Amino acid sequence: MFENKGRTEIENLGEFGLIDHLTKNIKIKNESSLKGIGDDSAVLNFEGKRTLISTDLLLEGIHFDLAYTPLKHLGYKAVQVNLSDIYAMNGTATQITVSIGISSKFPLEAVEELYTGISIACEKYNIDLIGGDTSSSKQGLVISVTSVGYADEDKICYRNGAREGDLICVSGDLGGAYIGLQLLEREKAIFLENPQIQPDLEGKDYIVERQLKPESRKDIIEVLGEINVKPTSMIDVSDGLASEILHICKQSDKGCKIYEEKIPIDPMTYDTARDFGIDPTVCALNGGEDYELLFTIAQSDYEKIKNSADISVIGHITEPSAGCNLISKSDIVHEIKAQGWNAFKKS
Amino acid sequence: MFENKGRTEIENLGEFGLIDHLTKNIKIKNESSLKGIGDDSAVLNFEGKRTLISTDLLLEGIHFDLAYTPLKHLGYKAVQVNLSDIYAMNGTATQITVSIGISSKFPLEAVEELYTGISIACEKYNIDLIGGDTSSSKQGLVISVTSVGYADEDKICYRNGAREGDLICVSGDLGGAYIGLQLLEREKAIFLENPQIQPDLEGKDYIVERQLKPESRKDIIEVLGEINVKPTSMIDVSDGLASEILHICKQSDKGCKIYEEKIPIDPMTYDTARDFGIDPTVCALNGGEDYELLFTIAQSDYEKIKNSADISVIGHITEPSAGCNLISKSDIVHEIKAQGWNAFKKS
Repeated sequence: MFENKGRTEIENLGEFGLIDHLTKNIKIKNESSLKGIGDDSAVLNFEGKRTLISTDLLLEGIHFDLAYTPLKHLGYKAVQVNLSDIYAMNGTATQITVSIGISSKFPLEAVEELYTGISIACEKYNIDLIGGDTSSSKQGLVISVTSVGYADEDKICYRNGAREGDLICVSGDLGGAYIGLQLLEREKAIFLENPQIQPDLEGKDYIVERQLKPESRKDIIEVLGEINVKPTSMIDVSDGLASEILHICKQSDKGCKIYEEKIPIDPMTYDTARDFGIDPTVCALNGGEDYELLFTIAQSDYEKIKNSADISVIGHITEPSAGCNLISKSDIVHEIKAQGWNAFKKS
Repeated sequence: MFENKGRTEIENLGEFGLIDHLTKNIKIKNESSLKGIGDDSAVLNFEGKRTLISTDLLLEGIHFDLAYTPLKHLGYKAVQVNLSDIYAMNGTATQITVSIGISSKFPLEAVEELYTGISIACEKYNIDLIGGDTSSSKQGLVISVTSVGYADEDKICYRNGAREGDLICVSGDLGGAYIGLQLLEREKAIFLENPQIQPDLEGKDYIVERQLKPESRKDIIEVLGEINVKPTSMIDVSDGLASEILHICKQSDKGCKIYEEKIPIDPMTYDTARDFGIDPTVCALNGGEDYELLFTIAQSDYEKIKNSADISVIGHITEPSAGCNLISKSDIVHEIKAQGWNAFKKS
C-alpha cells in the first residue's frame, strides 16, 4: 500500500519524536481544553457542567481489516465511534485522547494517514486531541480512543429513563454498515482468489461509506436541542437495533413493540441485502456499526419531531411483562433477541 | 499457568456477560462519579475543579512479558502507571476506564486475575472504575487505561514552571524497576535453556516488586499538601531520570545541574547492578518505570521538605545556556542525554 511513497521508519523518530511530529499542527479549539498534549495529563474545565467520558478499543483483525480499510478512514471512524457515545448521552463532545500501538510493518507515512483521518474528524466535529500514547506493537494495529464531553445535568439522557407509552425513535437508517461489510468481504475473497480481478463496488458508495466512514449524529443532538425535545432514554446503535433496544428496556425495566415496516432501511441496503440472500430487517436488527441514535420520547413530543426527515418513529415502550417484540410486516409477533456482534466468538 | 484451575471459555459469556461478570462487585467510592459503568459514557462532576485526564496503552511483548508477570500484578501495575500521571499534575486521581483485548488463549479465570489486580489498586487508591471496553484480540493481551482526576486550578503543577535556582527533588529511589527487569529476564533465559532450574530471585523481593508491582506516589502528593509546598514543575519518572529532567528543562526553557552522589539508589539496586556489570547511575538515569515523582521547588521551600525521608534533593535548575548536566562523583561534568526506553526500537 505504501510501496510507491516515501518510507520513513518510525524507530528513527522514537516515541517523543513521533508524538511531536504527529501533533505539531494541533490547535486547541475548545475553551474547556485548558491544557492538551505535552504534560502528564490534560487539564479540562467543565465548570458548572457534568463531565462525560467514554472509551473504545479497536484491534486489527477484530474490528477492522486493513485489506480494504484505508488508514485515513480508519482514523476517522475510530473518532466517530467514540464521539457517538458522548452524543448518545445528549452531550457535547469536546476532547479525545488517542493511543496507538503499531507494528514495524507500518512506516511513518501510514501513521500519518491514520492521524490525518483523526484530524479531519476532530476538525469537522470541533474536537480537541488532548493526549494519548504511542507504542510499537508485536501484533497489529491497536487504536484506543477515549472521548470526553459535557452536558448540563438535567439534559443528560441515560439508558434507563424510558417510560410506558414513550415513542421509540431512531435517526437515519439501519443495516447499511453491515451490508457494506459483506460487500467488502466478498470483494476481498474474490481478490484473494484472483488478484487480477478488481473490486466491483461501483454504485455502492453509500453502503461502503456507512461501513468505512460512519458519521456520529452530532446533528441529531443539535436538532433535538433546537426543537426542545429531551429524550427520556438514549443509546447509540453500535451492535444492532435489537441489542440496543434490549439495553434500554432492561435498564428502564420496560417492554417494547417495534414495527418492522417502520424500521428505516435505505433502498441500497435493502437491494444489496436481497442480492446476498439476507433479510434486510435482520441487517438492521443485528448488523450493528450504524452509529445512529436510538431514543425514546414522550408522546407529547411527537408533534415536535414529526417533521424531522431524519428521525423515524419505529414503535413504543410497553409494560415490562409484555416483553420486547417485533411486529412483522405480516403482523406476526417475534420476541426480540440480541444476536448482535459478539467480539468473543471463535473465528 | 491456569491448567490446574477451572477453565471457563470467555466466548460462552459474550462481551456483555463478561463485563457484567467482571464489574458486578464494583461500588462507586467518589462523590464525583455520578454514573459509572453501564451507559454510553460515564458522568462525572468536578464542580469548581479542573478535570485531569491521562491515558496509557500496555501491549503484550512490548510492555510486559507474561512469562514472569502474574496477571494480578499486571492489572495492578496498569492502574498505577496511569494514576502516576494524575499525581504528577499534583492532582487527586478519582476514576479510571479500562479497555482490554484478550486472545482466546486466556480463559475467564485469567481475565479475573487481571481484574483482581485492577480492583486491589482501585481499592487502595480510592479509585472508581467507571467504564471501558472488552474485546477479543487475534494475538496477545492489550490493556488501555485512562485515568481521570481533579485539582484546584492554582495547585496544578505543569512541566514548564521550573525557575532558575529551584531545587530538583525526586521521591523514593531510582533504577530498581530496571534492574528488577534484568533479573527477571536473566531467570527467564536460564529457565528456557533448562526448565529444571527454578528461578533464583531469593532476597531480591524489593527490586522484583519495583518492576512487577510499582506504587504511584499518591503519598508524596499528600505530604506536599500537608507541608504546604507547591512544586514549580513536576513529572513522573516513567522513562528514566535523564529523559524526565530534560522534559522539565525543555518545557521550562532552563538548564540543570544534577549531582550523581545525590541520586537516591537502593543498596539492592546498587549491588545487583554491579553484579550485572551495569553502572547503577545509568540504571537511575535511563532505566525508567520507577514511577517516582521528579519535581522542582523554590529554594525557600527547602526547610519544609528537608525532613521528608522519602524526598531527595538531587540538584538545581540553571539558566538555559548552561545546558543540562550531571556532575559525577569525581566532579566530571557530563551532558545529560535522553537514552530512555524507546518503544520503537527494532527487537
